[in-house]
Amino acid sequence: MLIERITILGTGLLGTSVGLALRAHGFMGSITGWDRDPKQLQIALNRGAIDTASIDAPSAVKGADLVVLSGPVFAIVGWMEQLSSCLKPGQLVTDVGSTKRRINACAERWFNQPGHADFLPGHPMAGKEVSGAANGDATLFDGAVWLFTPNETGVMDAHAQALAAEWREWVSRFGSKTMDLDAVRHDELCAWVSHLPQMVSTALTALLEDKFGDAEDMRAIGGRALREMTRLGCSPYSMWRDIAHTNADEIESALLALEQRLTHLRENLKSPELREEFSRANQFRLCQPAPPIPDKV
Amino acid sequence: MLIERITILGTGLLGTSVGLALRAHGFMGSITGWDRDPKQLQIALNRGAIDTASIDAPSAVKGADLVVLSGPVFAIVGWMEQLSSCLKPGQLVTDVGSTKRRINACAERWFNQPGHADFLPGHPMAGKEVSGAANGDATLFDGAVWLFTPNETGVMDAHAQALAAEWREWVSRFGSKTMDLDAVRHDELCAWVSHLPQMVSTALTALLEDKFGDAEDMRAIGGRALREMTRLGCSPYSMWRDIAHTNADEIESALLALEQRLTHLRENLKSPELREEFSRANQFRLCQPAPPIPDKV
Repeated sequence: MLIERITILGTGLLGTSVGLALRAHGFMGSITGWDRDPKQLQIALNRGAIDTASIDAPSAVKGADLVVLSGPVFAIVGWMEQLSSCLKPGQLVTDVGSTKRRINACAERWFNQPGHADFLPGHPMAGKEVSGAANGDATLFDGAVWLFTPNETGVMDAHAQALAAEWREWVSRFGSKTMDLDAVRHDELCAWVSHLPQMVSTALTALLEDKFGDAEDMRAIGGRALREMTRLGCSPYSMWRDIAHTNADEIESALLALEQRLTHLRENLKSPELREEFSRANQFRLCQPAPPIPDKV
Repeated sequence: MLIERITILGTGLLGTSVGLALRAHGFMGSITGWDRDPKQLQIALNRGAIDTASIDAPSAVKGADLVVLSGPVFAIVGWMEQLSSCLKPGQLVTDVGSTKRRINACAERWFNQPGHADFLPGHPMAGKEVSGAANGDATLFDGAVWLFTPNETGVMDAHAQALAAEWREWVSRFGSKTMDLDAVRHDELCAWVSHLPQMVSTALTALLEDKFGDAEDMRAIGGRALREMTRLGCSPYSMWRDIAHTNADEIESALLALEQRLTHLRENLKSPELREEFSRANQFRLCQPAPPIPDKV
């Protein structure tokens, strides 16, 4: 047991969930927290996600074996810069940021070098469309994939490597499947499977709001398809701004491709091309038909 | 109890579900079925959704108090034309078709006139992304909205009106909320809350299939957002072809509006306009944040 003192910077949805998950899975050490919003920090403390609320980030990380950076990407980048001089060799920093190229570049610059602390970039593929410590959940990571995108360059010292291995074990205990990925591939894949769905949902939801406002008949009629397609419409801009900024090139490509595909489909609503599009979509392997329900008679 | 003999034409997902729901809620009369696919007919019979399998549509509807037309829109339109001469005054026909302007026009032409049977256009907002009698489900309509779009012109005779009232009662017993809507408004609303989500899901899923094929890392990473956004990707073309044909103008408008919105969003990924789009989407009333989970400590 090398990790005895953990510090969580950013006690919103994910940071609080990490603290709760650690406790739920038997972590006996100390968990110190800090958040720039005193309310979030207090809620995390009240809920037992952290046991000490710190007054600022530099104090919070002092003496920690592991520091978990949990916030929008630019908040994480800001902490990395601010703390690189406070943190000491033998301390391991990890994060839960949504995009990884920018964070990996910062890790290369400020960490994983002789005389510096080490950094293991991470990203649990878990979340909610609502934010805040009050929505934190010890089971949030259960069944999720937790990605790590370690830099190929830069060398962790042996102690940091052991800390990293122990952190991966905790993540497994949370119920997550760990997986290593190149940061460039990470950002490309996330653009398609996460950022594109978010942007589509935001655009569609904003459009429905403009077109129908409070129309009762629209809401009465909308079923599961509408609920699913607009669920992410309540996602907070505060988090997505940083994702859009740090992964704009990949998101742009994905959006452009979808726009073209929608145009093609629109121009072929009455042509046999529509069949091709449906059959192409039917081939997608996630599209497994549900098994028929058992006969009742 | 005026409805003693019911005929279901088309014993696929919806037709079979109607039969099963009738039995589950205590319908004691006869249910005759017909489907152009003998396999679907046999499954419906085996599952008890119908108690007699007929050899063709004209025989099936003979003597029925209520005929339920259940299939893609053009199949329904075909049956309406074919059966208008076989059906007699005093018989009521209803349907579960996905678009209503075309069906209402046919009802006006072939029904609801002296010497003809009567027609009540209907549309349960329920379904699955899989089709077929094997997926039929007595609870499919529970909690759904069941729309009716009666023609303003044309007059039902008193007997047909009583049959229609009794059918609405059955629909309520299935657990559906009935609601009357103008056929034009129906098709407009459905374009936005049902057809647009379908087309977006088809386009996105087809695009992902083209781009990633069987890539394991993409599938490992994809979470709830991806599952939700691609769920409708397995919807069958056979049903959607008719929807696309009979509601093309409305679907085109909705698609074009979404394409423009996506373009706007893509061009503003790094601008404050992105905040506007997110905040517009956040206003949508379906976007109610889930209540925080209760504290555990």
